[in-house]
Amino acid sequence: MRKLPSPAVGAGAAATAAGATAGAADAAVADATDAAAALPEQAFAPEARDAVYRAIFERRDMRHFAGGSVESATLRRLLTAAHQAPSVGFMQPWRFIRVQDRALRETLQQAVERERIETARALGQRADEFMRLKVEGLLDAAELLVVCLADGREQHVFGRRTLPQMDLASASCAIQNLWLAARAEGLGMGWVSLFDPAEVAALLGLPPGAEPIALLCLGPVHEFYAEPMLQQQRWARRQPLSELVFDEGWGQPSALFEPSDSFDPASAAAASEVAIFGDQGLPA
Amino acid sequence: MRKLPSPAVGAGAAATAAGATAGAADAAVADATDAAAALPEQAFAPEARDAVYRAIFERRDMRHFAGGSVESATLRRLLTAAHQAPSVGFMQPWRFIRVQDRALRETLQQAVERERIETARALGQRADEFMRLKVEGLLDAAELLVVCLADGREQHVFGRRTLPQMDLASASCAIQNLWLAARAEGLGMGWVSLFDPAEVAALLGLPPGAEPIALLCLGPVHEFYAEPMLQQQRWARRQPLSELVFDEGWGQPSALFEPSDSFDPASAAAASEVAIFGDQGLPA
Repeated sequence: MRKLPSPAVGAGAAATAAGATAGAADAAVADATDAAAALPEQAFAPEARDAVYRAIFERRDMRHFAGGSVESATLRRLLTAAHQAPSVGFMQPWRFIRVQDRALRETLQQAVERERIETARALGQRADEFMRLKVEGLLDAAELLVVCLADGREQHVFGRRTLPQMDLASASCAIQNLWLAARAEGLGMGWVSLFDPAEVAALLGLPPGAEPIALLCLGPVHEFYAEPMLQQQRWARRQPLSELVFDEGWGQPSALFEPSDSFDPASAAAASEVAIFGDQGLPA
Repeated sequence: MRKLPSPAVGAGAAATAAGATAGAADAAVADATDAAAALPEQAFAPEARDAVYRAIFERRDMRHFAGGSVESATLRRLLTAAHQAPSVGFMQPWRFIRVQDRALRETLQQAVERERIETARALGQRADEFMRLKVEGLLDAAELLVVCLADGREQHVFGRRTLPQMDLASASCAIQNLWLAARAEGLGMGWVSLFDPAEVAALLGLPPGAEPIALLCLGPVHEFYAEPMLQQQRWARRQPLSELVFDEGWGQPSALFEPSDSFDPASAAAASEVAIFGDQGLPA
Protein backbone atom coordinates (compact mmCIF):
# COMPACT_ATOMS: atom_id res chain seq x y z
CA MET A 1 0.00 0.00 0.00
CA ARG A 2 1.05 3.60 -0.48
CA LYS A 3 2.93 5.47 2.18
CA LEU A 4 0.87 8.17 3.85
CA PRO A 5 2.10 11.71 3.40
CA SER A 6 3.52 13.47 6.42
CA PRO A 7 0.95 15.34 8.49
CA ALA A 8 3.17 18.41 8.03
CA VAL A 9 2.03 18.54 4.42
CA GLY A 10 -1.41 19.44 5.64
CA ALA A 11 -0.52 21.69 8.52
CA GLY A 12 1.99 23.88 6.75
CA ALA A 13 0.93 23.57 3.14
CA ALA A 14 1.72 27.12 2.13
CA ALA A 15 4.95 27.25 4.10
CA THR A 16 6.08 23.84 2.85
CA ALA A 17 5.41 24.73 -0.74
CA ALA A 18 7.26 28.03 -0.33
CA GLY A 19 10.14 26.07 1.20
CA ALA A 20 10.31 23.92 -1.89
CA THR A 21 11.20 26.98 -3.93
CA ALA A 22 14.95 27.60 -3.76
CA GLY A 23 15.69 30.80 -1.86
CA ALA A 24 12.31 30.99 -0.18
CA ALA A 25 13.20 28.53 2.57
CA ASP A 26 14.15 31.18 5.15
CA ALA A 27 10.95 33.13 4.57
CA ALA A 28 8.93 29.96 4.90
CA VAL A 29 10.54 29.09 8.23
CA ALA A 30 9.98 32.62 9.54
CA ASP A 31 6.37 32.40 8.38
CA ALA A 32 5.81 29.15 10.26
CA THR A 33 7.51 30.49 13.39
CA ASP A 34 5.35 33.61 13.41
CA ALA A 35 2.25 31.49 13.09
CA ALA A 36 3.32 29.29 16.01
CA ALA A 37 4.06 32.31 18.17
CA ALA A 38 0.59 33.71 17.53
CA LEU A 39 -1.35 30.55 18.37
CA PRO A 40 -4.48 31.41 20.37
CA GLU A 41 -4.72 29.57 23.68
CA GLN A 42 -7.69 27.54 22.38
CA ALA A 43 -5.56 26.10 19.56
CA PHE A 44 -4.98 22.37 19.45
CA ALA A 45 -1.45 21.09 20.13
CA PRO A 46 0.53 20.94 16.85
CA GLU A 47 0.18 17.14 16.48
CA ALA A 48 -3.60 17.31 16.95
CA ARG A 49 -3.90 20.25 14.56
CA ASP A 50 -1.87 18.34 11.98
CA ALA A 51 -4.22 15.35 12.32
CA VAL A 52 -7.19 17.56 11.45
CA TYR A 53 -5.40 18.89 8.36
CA ARG A 54 -4.33 15.39 7.44
CA ALA A 55 -7.96 14.18 7.40
CA ILE A 56 -8.88 17.20 5.26
CA PHE A 57 -6.03 16.61 2.79
CA GLU A 58 -6.30 12.81 2.56
CA ARG A 59 -10.11 12.54 2.31
CA ARG A 60 -11.12 11.39 -1.15
CA ASP A 61 -14.39 10.98 -3.02
CA MET A 62 -14.12 7.20 -3.42
CA ARG A 63 -15.69 5.06 -6.14
CA HIS A 64 -13.61 1.91 -5.60
CA PHE A 65 -14.40 -0.19 -2.51
CA ALA A 66 -13.10 -3.41 -1.02
CA GLY A 67 -16.37 -4.90 0.22
CA GLY A 68 -16.04 -5.99 3.84
CA SER A 69 -18.07 -4.41 6.61
CA VAL A 70 -18.21 -1.50 9.01
CA GLU A 71 -18.50 -2.19 12.73
CA SER A 72 -21.80 -0.98 14.22
CA ALA A 73 -19.91 1.01 16.85
CA THR A 74 -17.89 2.71 14.11
CA LEU A 75 -21.01 3.52 12.12
CA ARG A 76 -22.60 5.05 15.21
CA ARG A 77 -19.47 7.18 15.77
CA LEU A 78 -19.61 8.38 12.16
CA LEU A 79 -23.31 9.25 12.37
CA THR A 80 -22.73 11.00 15.69
CA ALA A 81 -19.99 13.05 14.00
CA ALA A 82 -22.42 13.99 11.22
CA HIS A 83 -25.01 15.02 13.79
CA GLN A 84 -22.48 17.44 15.34
CA ALA A 85 -22.56 19.59 12.20
CA PRO A 86 -23.70 23.19 12.31
CA SER A 87 -27.22 23.83 11.06
CA VAL A 88 -29.08 26.97 10.16
CA GLY A 89 -31.17 28.01 13.18
CA PHE A 90 -30.11 24.65 14.75
CA MET A 91 -32.78 22.96 12.59
CA GLN A 92 -30.83 19.69 12.11
CA PRO A 93 -32.47 18.93 8.74
CA TRP A 94 -30.49 15.72 8.06
CA ARG A 95 -31.97 12.20 8.00
CA PHE A 96 -30.09 8.99 7.18
CA ILE A 97 -31.48 5.82 5.63
CA ARG A 98 -29.19 2.79 5.86
CA VAL A 99 -29.77 0.37 2.98
CA GLN A 100 -28.55 -3.17 3.56
CA ASP A 101 -31.21 -5.02 1.57
CA ARG A 102 -29.50 -6.32 -1.57
CA ALA A 103 -32.53 -6.03 -3.84
CA LEU A 104 -33.13 -2.42 -2.79
CA ARG A 105 -29.48 -1.62 -3.36
CA GLU A 106 -29.65 -3.11 -6.84
CA THR A 107 -32.75 -1.07 -7.63
CA LEU A 108 -30.98 2.09 -6.49
CA GLN A 109 -27.89 1.15 -8.50
CA GLN A 110 -30.05 0.74 -11.60
CA ALA A 111 -31.53 4.20 -11.01
CA VAL A 112 -28.00 5.61 -10.86
CA GLU A 113 -27.03 3.74 -14.01
CA ARG A 114 -29.97 5.26 -15.92
CA GLU A 115 -29.01 8.75 -14.80
CA ARG A 116 -25.37 8.05 -15.77
CA ILE A 117 -26.51 7.43 -19.34
CA GLU A 118 -28.73 10.54 -19.35
CA THR A 119 -25.79 12.58 -18.07
CA ALA A 120 -23.52 11.23 -20.79
CA ARG A 121 -26.09 12.31 -23.41
CA ALA A 122 -26.28 15.77 -21.84
CA LEU A 123 -22.48 16.08 -21.86
CA GLY A 124 -22.30 15.85 -25.65
CA GLN A 125 -18.69 15.73 -26.83
CA ARG A 126 -17.34 14.48 -23.48
CA ALA A 127 -19.89 11.62 -23.35
CA ASP A 128 -17.43 8.82 -24.18
CA GLU A 129 -14.84 10.11 -21.75
CA PHE A 130 -17.51 10.35 -19.04
CA MET A 131 -18.77 6.81 -19.69
CA ARG A 132 -15.27 5.43 -19.04
CA LEU A 133 -15.23 6.89 -15.51
CA LYS A 134 -16.31 4.84 -12.50
CA VAL A 135 -18.87 7.10 -10.88
CA GLU A 136 -20.38 4.97 -8.11
CA GLY A 137 -19.80 1.97 -5.87
CA LEU A 138 -23.32 1.17 -4.66
CA LEU A 139 -22.88 -2.59 -4.89
CA ASP A 140 -19.22 -2.71 -3.82
CA ALA A 141 -19.27 -0.56 -0.69
CA ALA A 142 -19.87 -2.14 2.71
CA GLU A 143 -22.56 0.42 3.56
CA LEU A 144 -25.00 2.58 1.64
CA LEU A 145 -26.45 5.59 3.44
CA VAL A 146 -29.07 7.74 1.75
CA VAL A 147 -29.04 11.27 3.16
CA CYS A 148 -32.30 13.20 2.98
CA LEU A 149 -33.58 16.61 3.97
CA ALA A 150 -36.49 16.23 6.37
CA ASP A 151 -40.08 17.18 5.70
CA GLY A 152 -41.60 20.19 7.47
CA ARG A 153 -38.67 22.46 6.68
CA GLU A 154 -40.90 25.38 5.72
CA GLN A 155 -41.49 26.10 9.42
CA HIS A 156 -37.80 26.95 9.87
CA VAL A 157 -37.39 30.63 8.97
CA PHE A 158 -34.28 31.56 10.99
CA GLY A 159 -31.46 32.10 8.45
CA ARG A 160 -33.67 30.82 5.61
CA ARG A 161 -36.13 33.62 4.82
CA THR A 162 -34.03 34.79 1.86
CA LEU A 163 -31.84 31.67 1.52
CA PRO A 164 -34.13 28.63 1.97
CA GLN A 165 -31.42 26.39 0.52
CA MET A 166 -29.40 26.74 3.75
CA ASP A 167 -30.92 23.43 4.91
CA LEU A 168 -28.99 21.71 2.11
CA ALA A 169 -25.89 23.62 3.18
CA SER A 170 -26.29 22.33 6.74
CA ALA A 171 -26.79 18.72 5.64
CA SER A 172 -23.70 19.03 3.44
CA CYS A 173 -21.65 20.08 6.46
CA ALA A 174 -22.95 16.96 8.23
CA ILE A 175 -21.84 14.82 5.30
CA GLN A 176 -18.38 16.45 5.34
CA ASN A 177 -18.08 15.66 9.06
CA LEU A 178 -18.96 12.04 8.33
CA TRP A 179 -16.47 11.97 5.45
CA LEU A 180 -13.56 13.29 7.51
CA ALA A 181 -14.35 11.00 10.45
CA ALA A 182 -14.51 8.05 8.04
CA ARG A 183 -11.07 8.97 6.66
CA ALA A 184 -9.68 9.01 10.20
CA GLU A 185 -11.27 5.59 10.78
CA GLY A 186 -9.58 4.34 7.60
CA LEU A 187 -12.88 4.07 5.69
CA GLY A 188 -13.55 5.48 2.23
CA MET A 189 -16.69 7.33 1.21
CA GLY A 190 -18.19 8.55 -2.05
CA TRP A 191 -21.09 10.99 -2.58
CA VAL A 192 -23.19 9.94 -5.56
CA SER A 193 -25.63 12.55 -6.90
CA LEU A 194 -26.43 10.81 -10.19
CA PHE A 195 -30.10 10.01 -9.57
CA ASP A 196 -33.60 11.34 -10.06
CA PRO A 197 -34.61 12.58 -6.59
CA ALA A 198 -38.32 11.87 -7.17
CA GLU A 199 -37.52 8.26 -8.07
CA VAL A 200 -35.31 7.70 -5.02
CA ALA A 201 -37.87 9.43 -2.79
CA ALA A 202 -40.54 6.99 -4.03
CA LEU A 203 -38.28 3.94 -3.58
CA LEU A 204 -37.55 4.85 0.05
CA GLY A 205 -41.02 6.08 1.01
CA LEU A 206 -40.09 9.68 1.73
CA PRO A 207 -42.98 11.86 2.93
CA PRO A 208 -43.97 14.95 0.92
CA GLY A 209 -41.44 17.72 1.41
CA ALA A 210 -38.50 15.41 2.19
CA GLU A 211 -35.76 15.14 -0.44
CA PRO A 212 -32.85 12.74 -1.00
CA ILE A 213 -29.57 14.62 -1.58
CA ALA A 214 -26.89 11.93 -1.45
CA LEU A 215 -26.25 8.24 -1.92
CA LEU A 216 -23.22 7.73 0.31
CA CYS A 217 -21.11 4.68 -0.43
CA LEU A 218 -19.03 3.90 2.67
CA GLY A 219 -16.61 1.19 3.63
CA PRO A 220 -13.13 -0.30 3.53
CA VAL A 221 -11.05 0.52 0.46
CA HIS A 222 -7.87 -1.08 -0.87
CA GLU A 223 -6.24 2.35 -0.94
CA PHE A 224 -7.16 6.01 -1.05
CA TYR A 225 -6.53 7.80 -4.34
CA ALA A 226 -3.28 9.79 -4.11
CA GLU A 227 -5.09 12.69 -5.78
CA PRO A 228 -8.75 13.28 -6.67
CA MET A 229 -9.83 10.50 -9.04
CA LEU A 230 -11.24 12.97 -11.56
CA GLN A 231 -7.81 14.59 -11.71
CA GLN A 232 -6.08 11.22 -12.05
CA GLN A 233 -8.43 10.49 -14.94
CA ARG A 234 -7.77 13.95 -16.43
CA TRP A 235 -11.41 15.01 -16.20
CA ALA A 236 -10.46 18.27 -14.46
CA ARG A 237 -7.55 19.83 -12.57
CA ARG A 238 -7.48 21.59 -9.25
CA GLN A 239 -7.57 25.36 -9.80
CA PRO A 240 -4.87 27.57 -8.22
CA LEU A 241 -6.22 28.83 -4.90
CA SER A 242 -4.92 32.33 -5.58
CA GLU A 243 -7.41 32.65 -8.44
CA LEU A 244 -10.36 31.85 -6.16
CA VAL A 245 -9.71 34.44 -3.44
CA PHE A 246 -10.47 38.14 -3.87
CA ASP A 247 -10.05 41.26 -1.72
CA GLU A 248 -12.97 43.65 -1.05
CA GLY A 249 -14.89 42.70 -4.21
CA TRP A 250 -15.23 40.11 -6.94
CA GLY A 251 -12.21 39.75 -9.24
CA GLN A 252 -9.72 41.78 -7.23
CA PRO A 253 -6.67 39.54 -6.58
CA SER A 254 -6.03 39.01 -2.88
CA ALA A 255 -2.94 40.49 -1.23
CA LEU A 256 -2.75 37.19 0.68
CA PHE A 257 -0.95 35.76 -2.33
CA GLU A 258 1.34 38.71 -3.04
CA PRO A 259 5.11 38.72 -2.38
CA SER A 260 4.80 41.75 -0.09
CA ASP A 261 3.13 39.47 2.41
CA SER A 262 6.23 37.23 2.69
CA PHE A 263 4.59 34.82 0.27
CA ASP A 264 6.07 33.71 -3.03
CA PRO A 265 3.28 33.97 -5.63
CA ALA A 266 5.08 31.43 -7.82
CA SER A 267 4.44 28.92 -5.09
CA ALA A 268 0.78 29.82 -4.63
CA ALA A 269 -0.20 27.38 -7.33
CA ALA A 270 2.23 24.87 -5.86
CA ALA A 271 0.65 25.26 -2.43
CA SER A 272 -2.71 24.21 -3.75
CA GLU A 273 -1.09 21.25 -5.46
CA VAL A 274 0.66 19.89 -2.37
CA ALA A 275 -2.24 17.74 -1.35
CA ILE A 276 -2.80 16.55 -4.88
CA PHE A 277 0.65 15.08 -5.15
CA GLY A 278 0.65 13.74 -1.62
CA ASP A 279 3.61 11.46 -1.04
CA GLN A 280 4.59 11.69 -4.67
CA GLY A 281 6.54 14.78 -3.66
CA LEU A 282 6.14 18.45 -4.32
CA PRO A 283 5.79 19.66 -7.89
CA ALA A 284 9.09 20.86 -9.38
CA MET B 1 -10.83 29.74 30.43
CA ARG B 2 -12.83 26.56 30.27
CA LYS B 3 -11.14 23.22 30.39
CA LEU B 4 -11.25 21.36 27.10
CA PRO B 5 -13.11 18.06 27.09
CA SER B 6 -11.05 14.93 26.71
CA PRO B 7 -10.52 13.87 23.09
CA ALA B 8 -12.01 10.54 24.12
CA VAL B 9 -15.40 12.24 24.33
CA GLY B 10 -15.33 12.65 20.61
CA ALA B 11 -13.72 9.41 19.61
CA GLY B 12 -15.87 7.12 21.61
CA ALA B 13 -19.02 9.12 22.05
CA ALA B 14 -21.39 6.18 21.93
CA ALA B 15 -19.19 3.95 24.05
CA THR B 16 -18.49 6.68 26.58
CA ALA B 17 -22.14 7.50 26.97
CA ALA B 18 -22.99 3.84 27.35
CA GLY B 19 -20.27 3.67 30.00
CA ALA B 20 -22.01 6.42 31.92
CA THR B 21 -25.01 4.14 32.33
CA ALA B 22 -24.51 1.95 35.39
CA GLY B 23 -24.10 -1.68 34.38
CA ALA B 24 -23.28 -0.93 30.76
CA ALA B 25 -19.60 -0.19 31.37
CA ASP B 26 -18.39 -3.69 30.45
CA ALA B 27 -20.35 -3.69 27.21
CA ALA B 28 -18.94 -0.30 26.35
CA VAL B 29 -15.37 -1.44 26.88
CA ALA B 30 -15.95 -4.56 24.79
CA ASP B 31 -17.49 -2.35 22.11
CA ALA B 32 -14.44 -0.10 21.98
CA THR B 33 -12.06 -3.09 21.94
CA ASP B 34 -13.91 -4.69 19.04
CA ALA B 35 -13.72 -1.44 17.12
CA ALA B 36 -9.98 -1.15 17.72
CA ALA B 37 -9.38 -4.72 16.62
CA ALA B 38 -11.18 -4.07 13.36
CA LEU B 39 -9.31 -0.90 12.40
CA PRO B 40 -8.49 -0.89 8.68
CA GLU B 41 -4.81 -0.41 7.96
CA GLN B 42 -5.50 3.05 6.52
CA ALA B 43 -6.94 4.21 9.85
CA PHE B 44 -5.22 7.04 11.68
CA ALA B 45 -3.46 6.24 14.98
CA PRO B 46 -5.94 6.58 17.88
CA GLU B 47 -4.57 9.97 19.01
CA ALA B 48 -4.84 11.40 15.49
CA ARG B 49 -8.33 9.96 15.04
CA ASP B 50 -9.38 11.49 18.35
CA ALA B 51 -8.08 14.89 17.23
CA VAL B 52 -10.35 14.77 14.18
CA TYR B 53 -13.37 13.91 16.34
CA ARG B 54 -12.37 16.60 18.82
CA ALA B 55 -12.46 19.27 16.08
CA ILE B 56 -15.87 17.97 14.97
CA PHE B 57 -17.28 17.99 18.52
CA GLU B 58 -15.77 21.31 19.67
CA ARG B 59 -16.49 23.36 16.54
CA ARG B 60 -19.14 25.98 17.26
CA ASP B 61 -21.12 28.46 15.18
CA MET B 62 -19.68 31.57 16.86
CA ARG B 63 -21.32 34.97 17.18
CA HIS B 64 -19.06 36.42 19.89
CA PHE B 65 -15.52 37.41 18.85
CA ALA B 66 -12.52 38.94 20.59
CA GLY B 67 -11.30 41.23 17.80
CA GLY B 68 -7.57 40.74 17.24
CA SER B 69 -6.23 39.41 13.96
CA VAL B 70 -5.51 36.25 11.99
CA GLU B 71 -1.97 35.68 10.69
CA SER B 72 -1.78 35.68 6.89
CA ALA B 73 -0.10 32.27 6.93
CA THR B 74 -2.94 30.90 9.06
CA LEU B 75 -5.56 32.37 6.75
CA ARG B 76 -3.82 30.77 3.75
CA ARG B 77 -3.82 27.40 5.55
CA LEU B 78 -7.54 27.73 6.26
CA LEU B 79 -8.36 28.65 2.66
CA THR B 80 -6.17 25.80 1.42
CA ALA B 81 -8.14 23.46 3.68
CA ALA B 82 -11.40 24.76 2.20
CA HIS B 83 -10.05 24.22 -1.31
CA GLN B 84 -9.41 20.55 -0.46
CA ALA B 85 -13.15 19.90 -0.19
CA PRO B 86 -14.92 17.44 -2.46
CA SER B 87 -16.86 18.99 -5.32
CA VAL B 88 -19.41 17.60 -7.72
CA GLY B 89 -17.59 16.67 -10.94
CA PHE B 90 -14.51 18.38 -9.37
CA MET B 91 -16.04 21.73 -10.38
CA GLN B 92 -14.63 23.66 -7.40
CA PRO B 93 -17.47 26.21 -7.39
CA TRP B 94 -16.29 28.17 -4.31
CA ARG B 95 -14.97 31.76 -4.37
CA PHE B 96 -13.89 33.79 -1.34
CA ILE B 97 -14.00 37.56 -0.94
CA ARG B 98 -12.03 38.89 2.02
CA VAL B 99 -13.52 42.13 3.36
CA GLN B 100 -11.18 44.27 5.44
CA ASP B 101 -12.50 47.69 4.45
CA ARG B 102 -14.36 49.05 7.49
CA ALA B 103 -16.95 50.99 5.52
CA LEU B 104 -17.81 47.95 3.40
CA ARG B 105 -18.09 45.81 6.51
CA GLU B 106 -20.45 48.31 8.07
CA THR B 107 -22.59 48.35 4.94
CA LEU B 108 -22.77 44.54 5.00
CA GLN B 109 -23.57 44.59 8.71
CA GLN B 110 -26.45 47.01 8.05
CA ALA B 111 -27.77 44.63 5.36
CA VAL B 112 -27.72 41.81 7.91
CA GLU B 113 -29.45 43.98 10.48
CA ARG B 114 -32.28 44.78 8.05
CA GLU B 115 -32.76 41.07 7.31
CA ARG B 116 -32.68 40.32 11.04
CA ILE B 117 -35.69 42.59 11.51
CA GLU B 118 -37.50 41.08 8.50
CA THR B 119 -36.85 37.61 9.92
CA ALA B 120 -38.23 38.60 13.31
CA ARG B 121 -41.42 39.82 11.60
CA ALA B 122 -41.70 36.52 9.70
CA LEU B 123 -41.24 34.53 12.91
CA GLY B 124 -44.41 35.95 14.46
CA GLN B 125 -44.79 34.79 18.06
CA ARG B 126 -41.08 34.04 18.52
CA ALA B 127 -40.05 37.50 17.23
CA ASP B 128 -39.08 38.95 20.61
CA GLU B 129 -37.14 35.85 21.58
CA PHE B 130 -35.32 35.95 18.23
CA MET B 131 -34.45 39.63 18.57
CA ARG B 132 -32.69 38.93 21.88
CA LEU B 133 -30.26 36.48 20.20
CA LYS B 134 -26.86 37.64 18.94
CA VAL B 135 -26.91 36.41 15.35
CA GLU B 136 -23.76 37.88 13.80
CA GLY B 137 -20.33 39.29 14.59
CA LEU B 138 -19.50 41.15 11.36
CA LEU B 139 -17.88 44.12 13.10
CA ASP B 140 -16.29 42.15 15.97
CA ALA B 141 -14.57 39.31 14.11
CA ALA B 142 -10.97 39.72 12.95
CA GLU B 143 -11.86 38.57 9.44
CA LEU B 144 -14.93 38.61 7.23
CA LEU B 145 -14.99 36.18 4.29
CA VAL B 146 -17.89 36.20 1.85
CA VAL B 147 -18.27 32.83 0.17
CA CYS B 148 -19.85 32.80 -3.27
CA LEU B 149 -20.78 30.28 -5.91
CA ALA B 150 -18.98 31.11 -9.15
CA ASP B 151 -20.59 32.25 -12.37
CA GLY B 152 -20.68 29.86 -15.35
CA ARG B 153 -21.94 26.91 -13.31
CA GLU B 154 -24.48 25.87 -15.94
CA GLN B 155 -21.69 24.29 -17.97
CA HIS B 156 -21.06 21.74 -15.20
CA VAL B 157 -23.49 18.86 -15.79
CA PHE B 158 -21.63 15.96 -14.09
CA GLY B 159 -23.64 15.10 -10.96
CA ARG B 160 -25.88 18.16 -11.44
CA ARG B 161 -28.28 17.28 -14.27
CA THR B 162 -31.07 16.36 -11.84
CA LEU B 163 -29.56 18.01 -8.73
CA PRO B 164 -28.14 21.39 -9.84
CA GLN B 165 -27.92 22.48 -6.20
CA MET B 166 -24.94 20.15 -5.68
CA ASP B 167 -22.65 23.15 -6.25
CA LEU B 168 -23.98 24.64 -3.02
CA ALA B 169 -23.43 21.26 -1.35
CA SER B 170 -19.78 21.28 -2.48
CA ALA B 171 -19.17 24.84 -1.31
CA SER B 172 -20.73 23.92 2.04
CA CYS B 173 -18.24 21.08 2.42
CA ALA B 174 -15.46 23.61 1.76
CA ILE B 175 -16.86 25.87 4.48
CA GLN B 176 -17.01 22.94 6.92
CA ASN B 177 -13.34 22.15 6.16
CA LEU B 178 -12.45 25.77 6.90
CA TRP B 179 -14.54 25.67 10.10
CA LEU B 180 -12.86 22.54 11.46
CA ALA B 181 -9.37 23.75 10.55
CA ALA B 182 -10.14 27.08 12.24
CA ARG B 183 -11.19 25.23 15.40
CA ALA B 184 -7.90 23.32 15.40
CA GLU B 185 -6.07 26.65 14.99
CA GLY B 186 -8.01 27.99 17.99
CA LEU B 187 -10.09 30.40 15.88
CA GLY B 188 -13.87 30.76 15.98
CA MET B 189 -16.12 31.03 12.96
CA GLY B 190 -19.77 31.85 12.37
CA TRP B 191 -21.84 31.37 9.18
CA VAL B 192 -24.30 34.24 8.75
CA SER B 193 -27.08 33.70 6.18
CA LEU B 194 -29.28 36.62 7.23
CA PHE B 195 -28.97 38.74 4.10
CA ASP B 196 -30.58 39.45 0.75
CA PRO B 197 -28.30 37.71 -1.76
CA ALA B 198 -29.08 40.21 -4.54
CA GLU B 199 -28.08 43.09 -2.29
CA VAL B 200 -24.78 41.47 -1.22
CA ALA B 201 -24.05 40.48 -4.83
CA ALA B 202 -24.45 44.12 -5.89
CA LEU B 203 -22.28 45.42 -3.03
CA LEU B 204 -19.43 43.09 -3.97
CA GLY B 205 -19.71 43.36 -7.74
CA LEU B 206 -20.59 39.73 -8.42
CA PRO B 207 -21.02 38.84 -12.11
CA PRO B 208 -24.36 37.48 -13.35
CA GLY B 209 -24.79 33.87 -12.25
CA ALA B 210 -22.58 34.15 -9.18
CA GLU B 211 -24.30 34.01 -5.77
CA PRO B 212 -23.22 34.83 -2.21
CA ILE B 213 -24.04 31.99 0.19
CA ALA B 214 -22.24 32.90 3.41
CA LEU B 215 -20.85 35.76 5.40
CA LEU B 216 -18.17 34.02 7.45
CA CYS B 217 -17.06 35.81 10.61
CA LEU B 218 -13.66 34.41 11.62
CA GLY B 219 -11.16 35.17 14.32
CA PRO B 220 -10.00 34.84 17.90
CA VAL B 221 -12.71 34.27 20.51
CA HIS B 222 -12.61 34.58 24.29
CA GLU B 223 -13.98 31.05 24.55
CA PHE B 224 -15.92 28.51 22.53
CA TYR B 225 -19.51 27.89 23.60
CA ALA B 226 -19.69 24.70 25.68
CA GLU B 227 -22.77 23.73 23.65
CA PRO B 228 -24.43 25.25 20.56
CA MET B 229 -25.38 28.84 21.41
CA LEU B 230 -28.95 28.35 20.20
CA GLN B 231 -29.28 25.50 22.71
CA GLN B 232 -27.74 27.58 25.49
CA GLN B 233 -30.30 30.26 24.69
CA ARG B 234 -33.09 27.63 24.60
CA TRP B 235 -33.99 28.35 20.97
CA ALA B 236 -33.82 24.64 20.07
CA ARG B 237 -32.42 21.38 21.43
CA ARG B 238 -30.31 18.74 19.72
CA GLN B 239 -32.55 15.90 18.54
CA PRO B 240 -31.74 12.29 19.58
CA LEU B 241 -29.64 10.76 16.80
CA SER B 242 -31.62 7.52 16.97
CA GLU B 243 -34.69 9.39 15.68
CA LEU B 244 -32.82 10.61 12.59
CA VAL B 245 -31.53 7.26 11.32
CA PHE B 246 -33.74 4.73 9.54
CA ASP B 247 -33.23 1.25 8.08
CA GLU B 248 -34.22 0.42 4.47
CA GLY B 249 -36.85 3.16 4.20
CA TRP B 250 -38.10 6.39 5.76
CA GLY B 251 -39.44 6.08 9.30
CA GLN B 252 -38.21 2.56 10.09
CA PRO B 253 -36.13 2.77 13.30
CA SER B 254 -32.56 1.62 12.77
CA ALA B 255 -31.27 -1.57 14.38
CA LEU B 256 -28.05 0.38 15.00
CA PHE B 257 -29.72 1.77 18.10
CA GLU B 258 -31.32 -1.44 19.36
CA PRO B 259 -30.10 -3.36 22.45
CA SER B 260 -29.52 -6.52 20.39
CA ASP B 261 -26.59 -4.75 18.81
CA SER B 262 -24.77 -4.40 22.16
CA PHE B 263 -26.09 -0.89 22.36
CA ASP B 264 -28.20 0.51 25.17
CA PRO B 265 -31.04 2.48 23.58
CA ALA B 266 -31.47 4.48 26.78
CA SER B 267 -28.02 5.89 26.16
CA ALA B 268 -28.63 6.67 22.50
CA ALA B 269 -30.04 10.05 23.40
CA ALA B 270 -27.21 10.50 25.89
CA ALA B 271 -24.64 9.70 23.21
CA SER B 272 -25.89 12.53 21.06
CA GLU B 273 -25.77 14.84 24.08
CA VAL B 274 -22.15 14.11 25.00
CA ALA B 275 -20.77 16.88 22.89
CA ILE B 276 -23.42 19.30 24.00
CA PHE B 277 -22.45 18.99 27.61
CA GLY B 278 -18.72 18.94 26.87
CA ASP B 279 -16.66 19.30 30.02
CA GLN B 280 -19.76 19.90 32.08
CA GLY B 281 -19.97 16.14 32.39
CA LEU B 282 -22.29 13.51 31.01
CA PRO B 283 -26.01 13.88 31.52
CA ALA B 284 -27.29 11.87 34.46
